[in-house]
Amino acid sequence: MADPYSKLVTSRFGRQLTARLGLPTPTPLRRYRPGEPVVSGPVLTGAAEGSRLGDSIAETLRGLHAEVRHTPGEDTRYAALVFDATGITSSPELGQLHDFFSPVIRRTERCARLIVLGTPPEEITDPAERTAQRALEGFVRTAGKELRGGATAQLVHVSRGGEQAVDSTLRFLLSAKSAFVSGQVIRVGATRARKPEDEQHPLRGRTALVTGASRGIGASIAETLARDGAHVVCLDVPAQGEDLAKVANRIGGSALQLDITGENAPRQLIDHVTERHDGLDVVVHNAGITRDKTIARMSRDKWDAVLSVNLTAQERINNALLEDSSPLRAGGRLVGVASISGIAGNVGQANYATSKAGVIGHVQAMAERAAERGVTINAVAPGFIETAMTAAVPLAIREAGRRMNSLSQGGLPVDVAETIAFYADPGSDGVNGNVIRVCGQSLLGA
Amino acid sequence: MADPYSKLVTSRFGRQLTARLGLPTPTPLRRYRPGEPVVSGPVLTGAAEGSRLGDSIAETLRGLHAEVRHTPGEDTRYAALVFDATGITSSPELGQLHDFFSPVIRRTERCARLIVLGTPPEEITDPAERTAQRALEGFVRTAGKELRGGATAQLVHVSRGGEQAVDSTLRFLLSAKSAFVSGQVIRVGATRARKPEDEQHPLRGRTALVTGASRGIGASIAETLARDGAHVVCLDVPAQGEDLAKVANRIGGSALQLDITGENAPRQLIDHVTERHDGLDVVVHNAGITRDKTIARMSRDKWDAVLSVNLTAQERINNALLEDSSPLRAGGRLVGVASISGIAGNVGQANYATSKAGVIGHVQAMAERAAERGVTINAVAPGFIETAMTAAVPLAIREAGRRMNSLSQGGLPVDVAETIAFYADPGSDGVNGNVIRVCGQSLLGA
Repeated sequence: MADPYSKLVTSRFGRQLTARLGLPTPTPLRRYRPGEPVVSGPVLTGAAEGSRLGDSIAETLRGLHAEVRHTPGEDTRYAALVFDATGITSSPELGQLHDFFSPVIRRTERCARLIVLGTPPEEITDPAERTAQRALEGFVRTAGKELRGGATAQLVHVSRGGEQAVDSTLRFLLSAKSAFVSGQVIRVGATRARKPEDEQHPLRGRTALVTGASRGIGASIAETLARDGAHVVCLDVPAQGEDLAKVANRIGGSALQLDITGENAPRQLIDHVTERHDGLDVVVHNAGITRDKTIARMSRDKWDAVLSVNLTAQERINNALLEDSSPLRAGGRLVGVASISGIAGNVGQANYATSKAGVIGHVQAMAERAAERGVTINAVAPGFIETAMTAAVPLAIREAGRRMNSLSQGGLPVDVAETIAFYADPGSDGVNGNVIRVCGQSLLGA
Repeated sequence: MADPYSKLVTSRFGRQLTARLGLPTPTPLRRYRPGEPVVSGPVLTGAAEGSRLGDSIAETLRGLHAEVRHTPGEDTRYAALVFDATGITSSPELGQLHDFFSPVIRRTERCARLIVLGTPPEEITDPAERTAQRALEGFVRTAGKELRGGATAQLVHVSRGGEQAVDSTLRFLLSAKSAFVSGQVIRVGATRARKPEDEQHPLRGRTALVTGASRGIGASIAETLARDGAHVVCLDVPAQGEDLAKVANRIGGSALQLDITGENAPRQLIDHVTERHDGLDVVVHNAGITRDKTIARMSRDKWDAVLSVNLTAQERINNALLEDSSPLRAGGRLVGVASISGIAGNVGQANYATSKAGVIGHVQAMAERAAERGVTINAVAPGFIETAMTAAVPLAIREAGRRMNSLSQGGLPVDVAETIAFYADPGSDGVNGNVIRVCGQSLLGA
């Protein structure tokens, strides 16, 4: 199930082309197909002395029917290496990371997974422990850059009391659904999370709304949430009505034509959902526009248009959805789409980068308020994703952009969609206030 | 006062070479020389409605005898553009950034300064205001990437109650001392800061200790703190004794030969300072080593050596320095040296990156405890700095490394030293728990 770009670069012509450009041939990434096992080979687990997540990790792996090993075998190649580092309480103890990973890190299958679990440093009062836990990040980010063959590396910060909430995160990271997510730090808070009743369709019986759903990443998000069992209300501006109807029909969802920047848009959206559906469970703010100009050449109109669609509309809708009268049910999920531009800044995108940094701010600002209502709010920050928009970028720049990450390739819209589906999962109650980059561990950052 | 590299690339030969490599010719950066004015041309200031830092900014600029403008003149070119954005309380109000900067951002002198001031988002309870304040970061990081001619862009987060503490930060950022600092977010806490009595020698009468002081960045730190009036105790391992003595003699300081990883090192260090000096005011943990290998090929010895020197020794010394009996005086300053590798990870540097991520963790873990004693703790994270170590890197990789930032050049050891001197300044009481990258806004990050 290779995408067109993977097909090209792994073809004989593509290999010759990329070799002449001095670029490595990227490994075709394994992506999720219904019915395939989540983990396809042996999983080696280990733990620092005194760690507290052993039972949780074992339970998840049992649930996945994974072949678990506790000591490295001579000739084994692993699909995943999972190390519980929560027991590390001082910097000398960090050597346990080395001892676990050094002998086995090269003995991994294609698209393997390296996962380190720790405690959120900001929740730790002992300075030595806090320091050591923060240090894990340097290890995982380096591991992500050293791994080859489509493998990824992640750090999961599990709050004390969040031991029962880590299942959905581990499943996502172990699975092919996180194909283009690497070098990330994901935080799981102190809560008990429910397990979905139907694992193949965790969103069965739920209603989701996706803005900007008529094409590209938005259409992929709508499809993925529908695959997971949700009824999806596909929203876009009236001008996109025809494409929108196609997407909605294809996935058995419904269409809502609405300009989200309109004064009454939050009200209209809520009225629509209340009239047609029992309530709302997942809202994905994917609609976004670019109006690129350098700051010196940018008109105020271009500034306002981007801020209004990408940030202000989302804020107003979420505010309305968190009011008492809202159709958003307990267990609800709000998801924003940020961007690496909002993290690192980008030439010609002052308006866009400001709006996307604002999306990150909005998620952080609303997480507590959302949690009080039993709702989570998170964002994804896509890096280079292969879309019609990026296809219009000149070849050399496009090739540089898509290769400047640890996986040496661009991501697909479905990679963004899968990360959003992970947030939407009923088991992700503990995942709140996160911003996960879907960027293959892009070199770019801040 | 061009460094050798600037001399090369701005020479006719160098220009031809870099043009053939397709690289832009970097602007020689203005660097601090005693006696020169901090700001060399007109400063345009502006503020969002309802901002609270106008008086503080005006006072700093008055103190610098700067030529201040409040409205753009027809033909004026500015040395600095300073915008107080603390009044921005919602995303639509962000348009004021556009209105201030768009007409003037191209009308700047060489090595100009763009500074935006805001409120730390995490201290704001109103979600709309918090979101908008967080959005400023996307603007400033983009501005840093669009600016040309050696100009820099920064965001200063000033806590409510920190209005009287922002002077040292503004001076540093406006001055040539921050030549290689760009795209940074600096936080100034709620405190009143003292002004140094002797502005040319803010550290007069104070004692500083610098580890790894025998060469490179460490020697530059020692020189810079001595220039600012401090007596500097230069520390290094006995094997570096000869070079160490030269540095100490050159700057009128003293030398201390000590292996900081020794069991009794903290005690020996404190005893030395107590016997020879009244007390200690500034401690800079610059000593660091690399032992590069990929995780798979790394021995436990190499891991332990790096962690021990770069992180554990520093933790042990700081713990001892924060005990009641410590010679560290109120107003004391602890400074760590992290690295971009500790932020982004780096192939072959799992031990180094882990140790440097730990330095960041240590600063964050100790900031509150330090503040209780009237001490601050901060770190710098250097990017590509021209040293004997980087000179040993092969040309092509070195050239890529030094150019991958907004200033298209490597920094100098003095750039790291000046940032540390800013932390050390008696006026920097409000600057605590910061990690400032000295990287010319490197593309690399997380």
